[in-house]
Amino acid sequence: MSELSRIGVAIDSDLLERFDKLIARRGYTNRSEAFRDLIRDALVEESWAEPQSEVVGTVTLVYDHHVRQLNEKLTDFQHHHFHHILSTLHVHLDHDHCLEVLVVRGKAGQVKRIADALVSTKGVKHGRLTLASTGMGL
Amino acid sequence: MSELSRIGVAIDSDLLERFDKLIARRGYTNRSEAFRDLIRDALVEESWAEPQSEVVGTVTLVYDHHVRQLNEKLTDFQHHHFHHILSTLHVHLDHDHCLEVLVVRGKAGQVKRIADALVSTKGVKHGRLTLASTGMGL
Amino acid sequence: MSELSRIGVAIDSDLLERFDKLIARRGYTNRSEAFRDLIRDALVEESWAEPQSEVVGTVTLVYDHHVRQLNEKLTDFQHHHFHHILSTLHVHLDHDHCLEVLVVRGKAGQVKRIADALVSTKGVKHGRLTLASTGMGL
Amino acid sequence: MSELSRIGVAIDSDLLERFDKLIARRGYTNRSEAFRDLIRDALVEESWAEPQSEVVGTVTLVYDHHVRQLNEKLTDFQHHHFHHILSTLHVHLDHDHCLEVLVVRGKAGQVKRIADALVSTKGVKHGRLTLASTGMGL
Repeated sequence: MSELSRIGVAIDSDLLERFDKLIARRGYTNRSEAFRDLIRDALVEESWAEPQSEVVGTVTLVYDHHVRQLNEKLTDFQHHHFHHILSTLHVHLDHDHCLEVLVVRGKAGQVKRIADALVSTKGVKHGRLTLASTGMGL
Repeated sequence: MSELSRIGVAIDSDLLERFDKLIARRGYTNRSEAFRDLIRDALVEESWAEPQSEVVGTVTLVYDHHVRQLNEKLTDFQHHHFHHILSTLHVHLDHDHCLEVLVVRGKAGQVKRIADALVSTKGVKHGRLTLASTGMGL
Repeated sequence: MSELSRIGVAIDSDLLERFDKLIARRGYTNRSEAFRDLIRDALVEESWAEPQSEVVGTVTLVYDHHVRQLNEKLTDFQHHHFHHILSTLHVHLDHDHCLEVLVVRGKAGQVKRIADALVSTKGVKHGRLTLASTGMGL
Repeated sequence: MSELSRIGVAIDSDLLERFDKLIARRGYTNRSEAFRDLIRDALVEESWAEPQSEVVGTVTLVYDHHVRQLNEKLTDFQHHHFHHILSTLHVHLDHDHCLEVLVVRGKAGQVKRIADALVSTKGVKHGRLTLASTGMGL
């Protein structure tokens, strides 16, 4: 980790009061931490807009495991992309439904294509890609 | 406007450097202004999640003015809600297409319902509600 | 406008029932119209991810007109970019606050840069870019 | 699963052609499946706007495990909320960084509060809540 800087920020007192209340509601005990989180979130957002940047994302899928050959299809696809799919978590939601979370690492463009392919698989009821980060430089 | 506070924020030097580059790309000449914008955007976002809070939003519609009675329907609807629709801007995009922007003020829940009704009107090709603010307390 | 196609969509009865309730709440009187809106929204979203595609967007700004030279700065900037800024709507929100909506047309990358420059202008309290469309092909 | 309905959707031929290209790029081999996914995504989005509805979400956290007592804090918090936190996946991103994904189930309001508390924990560099679904009724 690099050294710590301490910077001054000029801010209207009323605005500061509203911000302090907002971050208290969200559980922050430290104003600097809340500022750093706003910064990091903006940086993560930007990195995903650049197809060549190295990112980590999670793909969340909800599906019915009774759908014929869906398990096989999802497993085959994941092994085909094992270089980018770091790990997978599976939860049995009820008798029929599974939730699966995949952690995917690679260039932003690749990770998006992998997520599209998973979400569009027949039998997957709902899927979303979450933009996360390798943590580098944050 | 209330008085100005000056607060200190502790931040890792590497992270600060990345933030400074990000805000330079976006055109900020002043770091405090960029911090204030992050704060205000978080506050505006939160105010819209509360149906009773007073907000201002803009509704952007794209439609084909040849669609029968669409103009009349949109105009009637707007006059019915004239207490909440402050003003309207109309742009002729091409021979067929119009873009209309409406500025809507009221409680967040009301503004969303007005936007839903406009966007769902038959003949409106695309519509979006933008979350803005009355400016109060920002 | 091109000719109309009529396609068949297979859909689980329970899911269809939930969809019909959702679109009724949003004001749709016609299921096909709701489907077309979902399609158009996905197409607009995609067009904005491609920096070279021709788009129309609206930029919504909230600012305090008492801020020194802010009006001049915003006006100068707009005249400098008059090829892309089609029209502007101004609303007086209260004694201090203005809301301004600009309709911006051009390549997605350009429109985003214009929006960034406006939102980051010192004195602008809140700003958002809304993704709309030229209407072509929708 | 309930029985299957087959409905007709009227759609402009040009728009249909653009939609078919879009879904082909995303990997769909079946147009009905793409329609159903648009519907389900709209339903999931709406369910999260209602604090009392039963949802499942995933919280993705990136943090530096060297931060003092962070591991203990995150573990304690999770055990305190074990009724809602179904399962957790941990990935070692590099020497310093961990990515953790938690699957959280409960009422939408509760799940959001749990996510806020995790994301705001000091030492967590980046965190996001992903809106997913129990799969029921989809």
